[in-house]
Amino acid sequence: MNYAIILAGGSGTRFWPLSRTQEPKQFLNLCSDKPLITQAVHRIKKILEAENIYIATNKIYQKNIKACLKGLGIPRGNLFFEPLSKNTLAPIGALSNLIYRCDNDALITVIPSDHYLKNEPIFLKALKEGLVTANKGYIVTIGIKPDRPHTGYGYIKTKTQDTRRKAQVFAVEKFIEKPDIKRAKEFLKDKRYYWNAGIFIFRADTMLKAIKKFASRDFRVINKIKDKKSMNRQWKRFRPVSIDYAIMEKAKNIALIPADFGWVDLGSLSAIEYFSKKDGYGNIFKGRCIDIGSKNTLAWSGHRLLATLGLDNIIIVDTKDALLVCAKDKAQDVKAIVRALKQRKLIK
Amino acid sequence: MNYAIILAGGSGTRFWPLSRTQEPKQFLNLCSDKPLITQAVHRIKKILEAENIYIATNKIYQKNIKACLKGLGIPRGNLFFEPLSKNTLAPIGALSNLIYRCDNDALITVIPSDHYLKNEPIFLKALKEGLVTANKGYIVTIGIKPDRPHTGYGYIKTKTQDTRRKAQVFAVEKFIEKPDIKRAKEFLKDKRYYWNAGIFIFRADTMLKAIKKFASRDFRVINKIKDKKSMNRQWKRFRPVSIDYAIMEKAKNIALIPADFGWVDLGSLSAIEYFSKKDGYGNIFKGRCIDIGSKNTLAWSGHRLLATLGLDNIIIVDTKDALLVCAKDKAQDVKAIVRALKQRKLIK
Repeated sequence: MNYAIILAGGSGTRFWPLSRTQEPKQFLNLCSDKPLITQAVHRIKKILEAENIYIATNKIYQKNIKACLKGLGIPRGNLFFEPLSKNTLAPIGALSNLIYRCDNDALITVIPSDHYLKNEPIFLKALKEGLVTANKGYIVTIGIKPDRPHTGYGYIKTKTQDTRRKAQVFAVEKFIEKPDIKRAKEFLKDKRYYWNAGIFIFRADTMLKAIKKFASRDFRVINKIKDKKSMNRQWKRFRPVSIDYAIMEKAKNIALIPADFGWVDLGSLSAIEYFSKKDGYGNIFKGRCIDIGSKNTLAWSGHRLLATLGLDNIIIVDTKDALLVCAKDKAQDVKAIVRALKQRKLIK
Repeated sequence: MNYAIILAGGSGTRFWPLSRTQEPKQFLNLCSDKPLITQAVHRIKKILEAENIYIATNKIYQKNIKACLKGLGIPRGNLFFEPLSKNTLAPIGALSNLIYRCDNDALITVIPSDHYLKNEPIFLKALKEGLVTANKGYIVTIGIKPDRPHTGYGYIKTKTQDTRRKAQVFAVEKFIEKPDIKRAKEFLKDKRYYWNAGIFIFRADTMLKAIKKFASRDFRVINKIKDKKSMNRQWKRFRPVSIDYAIMEKAKNIALIPADFGWVDLGSLSAIEYFSKKDGYGNIFKGRCIDIGSKNTLAWSGHRLLATLGLDNIIIVDTKDALLVCAKDKAQDVKAIVRALKQRKLIK
């Protein structure tokens, strides 16, 4: 049977002040009238049953997630509240094992909850192809063809080049962390590099075998988790590592399926640009805004009147209790602001 | 006897959103813990009696002005509430006449209420010199030596050059409206040009004679104003002209006294820079602000947390209900924002 694990534990510091510790971006209506996580569930429900959707999130988001999932048919028992953020290996490993115990033939699709994608049919087609390949014993990852030298994404390099220019399966050579701009530009030219969208498809037994081989210590923890009680007891023993680092970079049976469905990781506030309509000067205004002479500016107003004058490449995010004004090319550093605010105990 | 007329009728659109129609900049604590108008009164009280201070303002500011003048000893009858804004000739003319009726030898000093000045002793010394010259039948204006090619100020050109480099009296050749940057640069090089600070000293009879000669229509209105009742009735008949335009540019008995007391007309938000301490990167932060990597930025936060990141030459003014983010070199255009907001009925 087909299952999904939706990862919704992100703390969303890079979207401050829109996102907060109590309300990270997966719970925000960023690009439609529905929160990102609700959109992710709607999407995946088109290829599998609601009762087969599992969601891993931090326990501090219990309330938010229940509000976002209302009426979507996901059983309460499928919500997995991590007592502590442990990156992605822990929830993927633990949930794969719980699913495997009930269904030895389980095929699992892992998707993040905080991504935006434009073309759902292409996305679903890629997942279906992934399921076929995964059922043969591969850990499948969906690779996004880069269209710009993005330094905020991880990359995946395939062994061979995509020459046929249509969907196929590639063997993966390696996973690459966020590159600097020089390398990102090289990757863009080379047809063997793809963005890592954090979407993985595998048989539960394939993944558990890989974890046993490459992360045996975590595998022992996984095997002790049988219910919520044991989860709460065992969770602290997990290493806080990503599935990419612990498994993908080491396993040999990784397959990449390229797909181009207009994917955006909402990694920083500037990502809002990809799903918002710009005016003739490249500006995006949301809320009660008035502008004279600005260009390439993103102004997101909450309740108050926002006036902008002669700005260029500036991001403004105004919320009830906090305001951010930032140079657009520094949007990825918002997390440093959040860190500093936490240190000074100005925010929780 | 010595009298003062403080002009406090400005609408303060260029300081929006700090200033509002209901609270223009003369009522704000912009550069100290006291509103600008309170500072102006304190200053002038050092050379004349509180009961000889007259204040002209718009009637919509009755409440504000009473709050700012509390305990300063200015008689209520000296507050002059204009039913309609009529620029500066009307209040100066009408008040000069009312003062003249009680004191034929009255010497009057006119000062704006919304200026900042650094060196009070030099300012008071200039006024005292002005009083001596004014008593001889001159209309004295205080000229500020320009230290940069400011395009937001009016200029006064003297007939001769200041060669002795010490206080003296100059005959005035002409008054000049705000110049463009090219002319402002020429003025800066030429030693005959001074900034027009809007400070005038004259005998009441000298001024009334000049008004009779150069603005006879307004002189007839002035003569009909005997009390508040007649003022309210006559006021609409005044032309809305400045004293500079109506009298100074035409009269021959104008004398300029140069003085250098660190004067700033708070003509735009960027003027805040002149009385605020900058950090090592040229930034000024007021309120609860946190910054990473900005320079030359002026961030004025009200109640909320303001985070800035990588900005350069930006002005941010955050108030309870409105927020302005503006390129510093566009600060003089804030009045265009206010105009647009009024047109769209977003503000009063």
